[in-house]
Amino acid sequence: MKAPIFIACALALSGLGCLAAAPTSAEPITPALVEKISQANFAEFFEMLSLPNDSIVAADVRKNADWLEAAFRKRGFTTRQLPNKDKPLVFAEYGETNPNARTILFYIHFDGMPVLPEQWAQKSPWTPALKQRKASAPPPAAPTFTPSRVSAQPTWEEIDKAQLFSGKIDPDWRIFGRSSSDDKGPIMMLLTAFDVLKAVSLEPEINVKVLLDSEEEKGSPTIGTVAAAHRDLLRADAIVIHDGPLHASSQPTIIFGNRGNTVVELTVHGPKAPLHSGHYGNYAPNPAQRLATLLASMKDDEGRVTIAGYYDSVKLTDAERGIMSAVPDDEPELLKRLGISRPESVGRNLQEAIQYPSLNIRGMASAAIGDKGANIVPSKAVAELDLRTTPGAGPDLLAGLIEKHVRAKGYYLSNGEPTDEERAQHDRIASVAVARGSAAAFTPLDSPVGAWAQDTLARVFAAGENPAKTVRIRMMGGSVPTDKLVDALALPFVIVPLVNPDNNQHSFDENLRVGHFLNGVRSMTGLLRAPYAK
Amino acid sequence: MKAPIFIACALALSGLGCLAAAPTSAEPITPALVEKISQANFAEFFEMLSLPNDSIVAADVRKNADWLEAAFRKRGFTTRQLPNKDKPLVFAEYGETNPNARTILFYIHFDGMPVLPEQWAQKSPWTPALKQRKASAPPPAAPTFTPSRVSAQPTWEEIDKAQLFSGKIDPDWRIFGRSSSDDKGPIMMLLTAFDVLKAVSLEPEINVKVLLDSEEEKGSPTIGTVAAAHRDLLRADAIVIHDGPLHASSQPTIIFGNRGNTVVELTVHGPKAPLHSGHYGNYAPNPAQRLATLLASMKDDEGRVTIAGYYDSVKLTDAERGIMSAVPDDEPELLKRLGISRPESVGRNLQEAIQYPSLNIRGMASAAIGDKGANIVPSKAVAELDLRTTPGAGPDLLAGLIEKHVRAKGYYLSNGEPTDEERAQHDRIASVAVARGSAAAFTPLDSPVGAWAQDTLARVFAAGENPAKTVRIRMMGGSVPTDKLVDALALPFVIVPLVNPDNNQHSFDENLRVGHFLNGVRSMTGLLRAPYAK
Repeated sequence: MKAPIFIACALALSGLGCLAAAPTSAEPITPALVEKISQANFAEFFEMLSLPNDSIVAADVRKNADWLEAAFRKRGFTTRQLPNKDKPLVFAEYGETNPNARTILFYIHFDGMPVLPEQWAQKSPWTPALKQRKASAPPPAAPTFTPSRVSAQPTWEEIDKAQLFSGKIDPDWRIFGRSSSDDKGPIMMLLTAFDVLKAVSLEPEINVKVLLDSEEEKGSPTIGTVAAAHRDLLRADAIVIHDGPLHASSQPTIIFGNRGNTVVELTVHGPKAPLHSGHYGNYAPNPAQRLATLLASMKDDEGRVTIAGYYDSVKLTDAERGIMSAVPDDEPELLKRLGISRPESVGRNLQEAIQYPSLNIRGMASAAIGDKGANIVPSKAVAELDLRTTPGAGPDLLAGLIEKHVRAKGYYLSNGEPTDEERAQHDRIASVAVARGSAAAFTPLDSPVGAWAQDTLARVFAAGENPAKTVRIRMMGGSVPTDKLVDALALPFVIVPLVNPDNNQHSFDENLRVGHFLNGVRSMTGLLRAPYAK
Repeated sequence: MKAPIFIACALALSGLGCLAAAPTSAEPITPALVEKISQANFAEFFEMLSLPNDSIVAADVRKNADWLEAAFRKRGFTTRQLPNKDKPLVFAEYGETNPNARTILFYIHFDGMPVLPEQWAQKSPWTPALKQRKASAPPPAAPTFTPSRVSAQPTWEEIDKAQLFSGKIDPDWRIFGRSSSDDKGPIMMLLTAFDVLKAVSLEPEINVKVLLDSEEEKGSPTIGTVAAAHRDLLRADAIVIHDGPLHASSQPTIIFGNRGNTVVELTVHGPKAPLHSGHYGNYAPNPAQRLATLLASMKDDEGRVTIAGYYDSVKLTDAERGIMSAVPDDEPELLKRLGISRPESVGRNLQEAIQYPSLNIRGMASAAIGDKGANIVPSKAVAELDLRTTPGAGPDLLAGLIEKHVRAKGYYLSNGEPTDEERAQHDRIASVAVARGSAAAFTPLDSPVGAWAQDTLARVFAAGENPAKTVRIRMMGGSVPTDKLVDALALPFVIVPLVNPDNNQHSFDENLRVGHFLNGVRSMTGLLRAPYAK
């Protein structure tokens, strides 16, 4: 059952058309109440986290699905599992549909990255532990992309988790465990938000549907198919995705899109077999040299792609540039952390840079270096380019431009290893192979769902001791596999991340800050209570 | 004891000054005699080949050294072992010194490349086998630099080796075994040449010293020191090196020098740690991209080094160009074999190309490709450049020019991994490390020893069914570690290779063609009998 909705067009916000009134019911939902209800739910959260959830194990996926169905049912949801091979997704819908309210489909995933248990400084990745920073702890190290290869810093010490369930709690405590942040934390925040509403006898102002994904960490290979098969069930006005961390400033964050990614493998073929570089150096063309020349021709010294047409689709408005420059990125600090003295010149700032499609050499190899190095002319050289795509510059367009560029540089493109005939006919031979990842997805900054979410977060966090502005990210640099969901349902969407930026997702020290859990519940309570009228 | 030397200045050849008379004694040394004496020696050769000779095993080196001393002593040499840690070299000197004759120091090595016995299509690499080409054998495959990774072609079949020791022999038979060609074959040819002379009661016209190296395949790291310690013992007028194969045409070959080699490791540093390419692509400079740009700036599209000064020392005379264009390289066939449609444009032909110093990317790596590839901005990129050096463009000069070029491109050179301070101060950071190999060595084409060797081979092979011209190689492309020997003794030298070009040296199917053994003995007999007067 939902509370009645009061239409109050006088309060309509720009871009939102006629909005339901912002309820005065925000007042009973105090931070103290959120803390109290959360505290009562942490034991249940620990139970959720103790279920192994690498979706490579179908039986584990089903255990999680069953557990989640029960947890949502307990709170008044009807649930069902959506078949997906042997790894069902979970669908949950709250109460009865109010035909006068908008419907939001919340997307969160319950599967987690694989673990190497021996790397975890606790009993198991699936035995959540409460930890606090050691008094003597060094300052946080620069995050690395491959943290699993780095031994754990002894920064944290385990404390009795019972402290979390009663008595005073410290917002700086962390809950360590696989999926604590990515992405079971937000599921528990959503469940808790419903408990908060119940505690003050309030109902959501929107119709709530929830889709819990079982294979996000594997790239959600089938989510488009599953969504298409349940289009009626999933029908909504917009999708809110809870995944990933808040902006580095930890301010409330709304993300309006994400780049896609596609990998192009570019191989330059040299002699048929590696050749003695003494006998044939200066004679047989070196494929690594040619690959270098080809790659060099694709970008200028400032990191801008020089391939004709690559950036043509990017047209940023002044308003968008304003939003980007308002993002509180601490670039001097960022440069220091990354260990570089100045960034490339693709955009005027980080946010602007990631609005452009990228052409990044993610790996390059020719013959061997180091102990296995030999004085040879290699027989081939390979560069793997990962392209971050944008809505206006998709994989086909970009890979096509690269292929055209390679041909324009005099290359004949062979289908893999060239034949003897091709070798005899063509001086320059290359191969191009394209492996598509996820696509870019984008909702305009002035979309109703964006404005609704932004307004809500602004209202929730305007009050209190530390009023916080909402960070708006036009398009995040990374890629998420939800493009297939968004595409199948043809819905506008926003990403509303909730967890701490230093949560170390995917790593052996994944954690969720308790204070962020509480703020996450506040955000979600706000979203549930913010009318988003038809 | 040596035969008396008849001085006959009327017969002096250009460039040789006053020569001893060409002896008429060539007549009794017929191909038939060479074949007969060789046949009598093959069992001894098989015994030599059955001694394992990877110089990593000092005990094996000593067994070879003892065996060789005995073999040379049997033929009238005085011998001794020259201490070299626990891997002695063998020195042998024939008879008494004739003060009126020139002294030649013959250099050959008895150590061999490591083996992987399971790769050999015979009992063992050290159980020499006699083989003939199968009737159904496919045409010879393109030689590869890394043949050990390729499974053996079933081209050869083993035949009873007793056939070699008596009865009619087929010059196309091959003796398979480690060091059959590289480089024990030439030792046996030399021993046999002495047996041939003895059979017709002739003595050498030159004073003969022999130095047998034990660590050539390991780069002869100490040969310079050993030579310097025995300068008197090794005193000679010139060095003749027997190593490597004949020119591809199998014609008699004289090589007047070789390029050296030095490896420059060029590292471009990127962000401190690999970065998520979604979040930081278009922002953090990519070191692989920068390395590519740097490498591209070092060569033009035709493969010519564009670094200022790199080729300045190369000044080829018309005479030298004439000698190079006279080398019977079958370039169309070569291109086909290498699988390329046209060569680089460093020289007008292969021989000319290898007179230039080279800058060859022998290996290149940044992050990973294939299964281990990830969407990252790598933290560094490395290229290993192998430079073939020339007498006028040595390692210091070339590595210095490369370093200067890198600086001129705006790079700060760090000593290995840059510090945080260096990272903060410099946009472009690279490191350059130089690992020297052997040096170039060169004897002028008109040197007396060259003319003596050339004239001898011309005379030996002018007669018979297949008269052959001698191929003169100004400077071969590859590198040999004998530069340290040549340097320590400050002597002119020539390389006189004797074995078949398709001997597959270093590989699991190393072999020596019987016909080449016989011709090798003829060449050596000719050299021993060719007066080379003071």
